[in-house]
Amino acid sequence: MKSIKIPEATIIRLSVYSRYLDKIDIRKSSTVSSDDIAQSVGVNPFQVRKDLAYFGEFGIRGVGYNVKSLNQHLLKLLNLNVKCNIALVGFGKLGHALALYQGFKERGFVFTCIFDSDPQKIGTKVNGVEVISVDRLEEIVEQNHSRIGIISTPAKVAQEIANSLVKARVQSILNFAPVNLNIAPEISLRNVDLAVNLEFLTFNFDDE
Amino acid sequence: MKSIKIPEATIIRLSVYSRYLDKIDIRKSSTVSSDDIAQSVGVNPFQVRKDLAYFGEFGIRGVGYNVKSLNQHLLKLLNLNVKCNIALVGFGKLGHALALYQGFKERGFVFTCIFDSDPQKIGTKVNGVEVISVDRLEEIVEQNHSRIGIISTPAKVAQEIANSLVKARVQSILNFAPVNLNIAPEISLRNVDLAVNLEFLTFNFDDE
Repeated sequence: MKSIKIPEATIIRLSVYSRYLDKIDIRKSSTVSSDDIAQSVGVNPFQVRKDLAYFGEFGIRGVGYNVKSLNQHLLKLLNLNVKCNIALVGFGKLGHALALYQGFKERGFVFTCIFDSDPQKIGTKVNGVEVISVDRLEEIVEQNHSRIGIISTPAKVAQEIANSLVKARVQSILNFAPVNLNIAPEISLRNVDLAVNLEFLTFNFDDE
Repeated sequence: MKSIKIPEATIIRLSVYSRYLDKIDIRKSSTVSSDDIAQSVGVNPFQVRKDLAYFGEFGIRGVGYNVKSLNQHLLKLLNLNVKCNIALVGFGKLGHALALYQGFKERGFVFTCIFDSDPQKIGTKVNGVEVISVDRLEEIVEQNHSRIGIISTPAKVAQEIANSLVKARVQSILNFAPVNLNIAPEISLRNVDLAVNLEFLTFNFDDE
């Protein structure tokens, strides 16, 4: 299906476009133009049309896109039309924040299992999901058929956790620990380094 | 100084390269090749050379880059050679995680003021910084000359907070609230939407 290499930035924008479409009240307007989308998410209209053109012809010239059908297409492209079990490893401040993060819930992402090594945390519940000992990670993640593992542990144990997630057959890992992980190339890995976002801003400071 | 438009992806990679250089033990090796950098951060060597070429000639053919001087150049480009005061607004689970996030501290980012509206949180301290009532945001942020404001409040108050930060003369805003903010174009705004990272992974799922 996806034989053309789609740029990373395009994939990320698809996700942003879809979120915008989610918020349109289709009782008020059933269509949307590339100009509307572009303005709302802060890119230029040509970019919107180019991004969508990778996947076919969605719009009608002079009319725009049908909000509902475009969003259904995008959700399908992003594989969000099927439920996805996610395992969260590391229930510190960041892990707790992720478990409660409204932005995940809105897009249908649910954590089906949460792990930590701290006996004080094991057995507590968040959103009805119990925190389980990390010793049982491989067994439970495999049972749950979790396709994504999120690592929010301290850096020093992140590689070990990644190895366990791979053994438990996750397809993808989202890593919040500030460390480069060595992972087999068939596993999709995405590192979230929050400092990168700050440095993007400082780069753009006016020279003084 | 920065008259050429530098691609966003390049700026982000500069930050990633710099973090890698930070971790090299220069007692063991004072030089590094673009191949080493590329392999360690997971891009191709041509990309590394292209990214650095925007800013001049740093390497010596056949020898590579001097680790220390390249990193100093990168830190300067990223404006990390000067101290930057940051205001954090919203001290919920995510705000608390951000205040403790090791990845910020390692790169010299410090929160000089933290705000919340919850009387239970006001007056508590994290890393020696007291949580202050959000009513005093404009006054304190301006006094502190904070150049960056981080918003980790609920979505419904994020616009109001952004307006206050702009009045208090921040230059940049890093927004974690899942909402599009309307900000004057002279303020740099970066939205961190954590769900985008998950959707990047689900996009790459094998079709079943």
